[in-house]
Amino acid sequence: MPFKTDIEIARGAKKKPIQEIGAALGIPDQHLLPYGHDKAKVSQGFINSLQDRQNGKLILVTAINPTPAGEGKTTTTVGLGDGLNRIGKKAMICIREASLGPNFGMKGGAAGGGHAQVVPMEDMNLHFTGDFHAITSAHSLLSAMLDNHIYWGNEQGIDIRRVQWRRVVDMNDRSLRQITSSLGGVSNGFPREDGFDITVASEVMAILCLSKNLSDLQQRLGDMIVAYRRDKSPVFCRDIKADGAMTVLLKDAMQPNLVQTLENNPAFVHGGPFANIAHGCNSVIATKTALKLADFVVTEAGFGADLGAEKFMNIKCRKAGLAPDCVVLVATVRAMKMNGGVSKADLGAENVAAVNAGCANLGRHIENLKSFGVPVVVAINHFVTDTEAEVQAVKDFVAEQGAEAILSRHWELGSEGSAELAARVAEIAEAGESQFAPIYPDDISLFEKIETIAKRIYRADEVLADKKVRDQLKLWEEQGYGHLPVCMAKTQYSFSTDPGLRGAPTGHSVPVREVRLSAGAGFVVVVCGEIMTMPGLPRVPAAQSICLNEDGEIEGLF
Amino acid sequence: MPFKTDIEIARGAKKKPIQEIGAALGIPDQHLLPYGHDKAKVSQGFINSLQDRQNGKLILVTAINPTPAGEGKTTTTVGLGDGLNRIGKKAMICIREASLGPNFGMKGGAAGGGHAQVVPMEDMNLHFTGDFHAITSAHSLLSAMLDNHIYWGNEQGIDIRRVQWRRVVDMNDRSLRQITSSLGGVSNGFPREDGFDITVASEVMAILCLSKNLSDLQQRLGDMIVAYRRDKSPVFCRDIKADGAMTVLLKDAMQPNLVQTLENNPAFVHGGPFANIAHGCNSVIATKTALKLADFVVTEAGFGADLGAEKFMNIKCRKAGLAPDCVVLVATVRAMKMNGGVSKADLGAENVAAVNAGCANLGRHIENLKSFGVPVVVAINHFVTDTEAEVQAVKDFVAEQGAEAILSRHWELGSEGSAELAARVAEIAEAGESQFAPIYPDDISLFEKIETIAKRIYRADEVLADKKVRDQLKLWEEQGYGHLPVCMAKTQYSFSTDPGLRGAPTGHSVPVREVRLSAGAGFVVVVCGEIMTMPGLPRVPAAQSICLNEDGEIEGLF
Repeated sequence: MPFKTDIEIARGAKKKPIQEIGAALGIPDQHLLPYGHDKAKVSQGFINSLQDRQNGKLILVTAINPTPAGEGKTTTTVGLGDGLNRIGKKAMICIREASLGPNFGMKGGAAGGGHAQVVPMEDMNLHFTGDFHAITSAHSLLSAMLDNHIYWGNEQGIDIRRVQWRRVVDMNDRSLRQITSSLGGVSNGFPREDGFDITVASEVMAILCLSKNLSDLQQRLGDMIVAYRRDKSPVFCRDIKADGAMTVLLKDAMQPNLVQTLENNPAFVHGGPFANIAHGCNSVIATKTALKLADFVVTEAGFGADLGAEKFMNIKCRKAGLAPDCVVLVATVRAMKMNGGVSKADLGAENVAAVNAGCANLGRHIENLKSFGVPVVVAINHFVTDTEAEVQAVKDFVAEQGAEAILSRHWELGSEGSAELAARVAEIAEAGESQFAPIYPDDISLFEKIETIAKRIYRADEVLADKKVRDQLKLWEEQGYGHLPVCMAKTQYSFSTDPGLRGAPTGHSVPVREVRLSAGAGFVVVVCGEIMTMPGLPRVPAAQSICLNEDGEIEGLF
Repeated sequence: MPFKTDIEIARGAKKKPIQEIGAALGIPDQHLLPYGHDKAKVSQGFINSLQDRQNGKLILVTAINPTPAGEGKTTTTVGLGDGLNRIGKKAMICIREASLGPNFGMKGGAAGGGHAQVVPMEDMNLHFTGDFHAITSAHSLLSAMLDNHIYWGNEQGIDIRRVQWRRVVDMNDRSLRQITSSLGGVSNGFPREDGFDITVASEVMAILCLSKNLSDLQQRLGDMIVAYRRDKSPVFCRDIKADGAMTVLLKDAMQPNLVQTLENNPAFVHGGPFANIAHGCNSVIATKTALKLADFVVTEAGFGADLGAEKFMNIKCRKAGLAPDCVVLVATVRAMKMNGGVSKADLGAENVAAVNAGCANLGRHIENLKSFGVPVVVAINHFVTDTEAEVQAVKDFVAEQGAEAILSRHWELGSEGSAELAARVAEIAEAGESQFAPIYPDDISLFEKIETIAKRIYRADEVLADKKVRDQLKLWEEQGYGHLPVCMAKTQYSFSTDPGLRGAPTGHSVPVREVRLSAGAGFVVVVCGEIMTMPGLPRVPAAQSICLNEDGEIEGLF
């Protein structure tokens, strides 16, 4: 029997009206702002009314370092959410929104896969509820107001060589990476160098995802540094008086989006900051609201656990006062085999030795996650080609690390396949054994924070940074930014900064190329290696084959 | 008793759930795609199902040349729609959507005014249902694909000095008017000159508003000329293979937006092309759908009748097979007085002589509109300072022109104030006396079309165009574009190209500075004077005072 594709399964979904999904969570119709029949925003007023409720249990789904074999982190997040509902728990899922632009380069993706997906898939790959467009608008407004300020006399004394605020567009457009703007004479302003990033890289996105409420949002927007004066003093967004209007543009976007899984369980899909120059998690407001509405909230973080889980713990949880009750670490037999030296073409054949050889990366992540004081369960995301012996090899390895691995078949079977995982996760979370704490305090120096992550998570021997970087960090400490957490931007393919170095390397160095201050989001970005904030399109972009078919369905997007 | 402001009245609106508004039109819930509780899109499937129904009567609201006194064209459109419903007719309103960007420069506006408004006002001034964001995305995708095509080898042989396709953003951002892009070396492409227009100036906007359905939309998008080769042959959007994906991005935006008036009557607010370089009318699909759903459809066109009504007749009606049954020409006593030489400060004092002196502009418009074979009614949009004698002077003047002027007090009284106007308009439309025809045929030369408009509408003696312009028009005729209508871009303040020349000038010349081919929209733009396609922000932009107040309401936007 051939398996259906993700899109075939998604199109066959028997969706319930979104009001029914909301009603099951106790959200009255008037507080559910529908976008079509299968998407809705939850009103700010309703969210405010929940503040005195108890929180549910928070479960983070993270993964080993990604391999070309695919780990299925979102699929497992969705499968676990469905599994928890299946065993009678009231559970919600919180994941990120997809960026529109990249879907026209490579094919867009499902939220999840197989029988563990969130729908409506098409909308989530396109405009969805317009959140990212609102972010682009708010960002663009500040861009326009900044140049307008300079045009009309530059009262703030902005040094146009030191403008930090780049522009954004939600499209893969390499030709906008570096431009000169304000050409054409007196009526167009003062020519200067400028450039565009993709919208998800905007600090506005990171801020939206970290803000508790609209007034916190406006405060953070105002705190953003947009430029420096000739004396190097910072010019804030607030100095340009853009923070109020930006907040107005983001008012609706701040409300979490409710959708459903294939099994009609509720999911918030909200926010989507970059996972390198930002923290890569869905919004704080969605996670916190879900914790008030459900007994179990399953969420995920970008990339592997060395980046995603680390930032979830050290940035999102620290700043939002959240604490995970259990962490699920996703691994696959195929990824173990690739880590053990098997090429992608040979993944079909049983190879227990390779599985064993490849488990080192998994072991390192288990150890790291435990260092945050949280219970860890390994979810083996089942592929139909996995053999029993291979699965057993992973289980044995995990047991040796003092943890537990559970096979989960949600991709193939939906919640029927994830019920065992769900039961164990629920048991652990309910036991209340988590003693979560970030791995560094607020009050050590910024450089010590970088060193802590590099040594304790990446297992590097040293952090390399030239005087310019170290001086910059010291200057920010003097300016009052020393208490901020650091946001590491490095390759997701390795614990080290070398994407080719798989497994569990030690003894390496972490070179810091550059540091950036996201004063509104509230972290210092530490750039280790090449970081691309505006992707390009491939030679044959997916867009060339995207179209509507005769039934009005979208072809080529998935 | 002080009058309430527009925003106070709008906030006091007793809105019905949008499903009730839809139900009154016979739109079943499943075909109404809600955006919140007070906005909805009508599904493409439902629109398709209406094709065999009879059309209602079409009423165009247009105006004299705008003066700083304000004419209230949209206010009268809304007031007339409400009035028709009041007298027991099933009537709908079709107006344009507002552009987001300019609201952050000058204050945003109501759709209508006083007691003749469409709501929700806030949303309509911000993201609304995301149509303009979808247009920006579709436009930006083509921009990115075009440069990507050049980057990967330029198989089409595009001359990068002859790229026609500028970028867009929905923001007033003068610094993007002229840029150099693709700087920074090999990985960013080939440096070239480029620039941004505001989204409403995009040809995609004009196309969306002129397309009959999604396949027509894709056809027109494919027809757009994006660049020329060194041999000056055109490169089409279709050659870049962007038309399919752009159609997917515009799929939802093609569905008309249903909202309501303060009196809970239905209104489509859909599309908003520039009124100079494009045709300045709401979408064909909204107008045509409304004609299937209601017995009377009241719509409007941009600027004064010399531009707006001319384009409505010669472009929109010609292309869409529409024919107005009655035209309502809006005039105010105040505007007559300004045309008669009174300054804005002195408008409060009765001045019948000035009214009489200022009526020439009105008379010219009446004559012009009649030349399209349509019955004309003048609506005197009442201001509370107007005196009876002044109103009578306008009525007398109009009667001398063989037409009829009716005082309408919808701003102050809602439909109670417009019932008389509505009754007369309904009577005329139902009488079926309109013998509408565009004022020029398809098969005269492009230059003859320009001359026809210049001489018959503007009453100029001659059209001035240098050899370059004339040769360009001839080249397009040879390439098969000779059958297209022309789209005049000139000042809206005068029949002539001199904005200071009020009244009813004759004997002037119309200099054509430039011609542009909008091959997808299907018209040749004739630029007579300076045309700004990217506005700037003022010294103190409205955005500086826009914010949320403590009740979460938006301040400063209106």
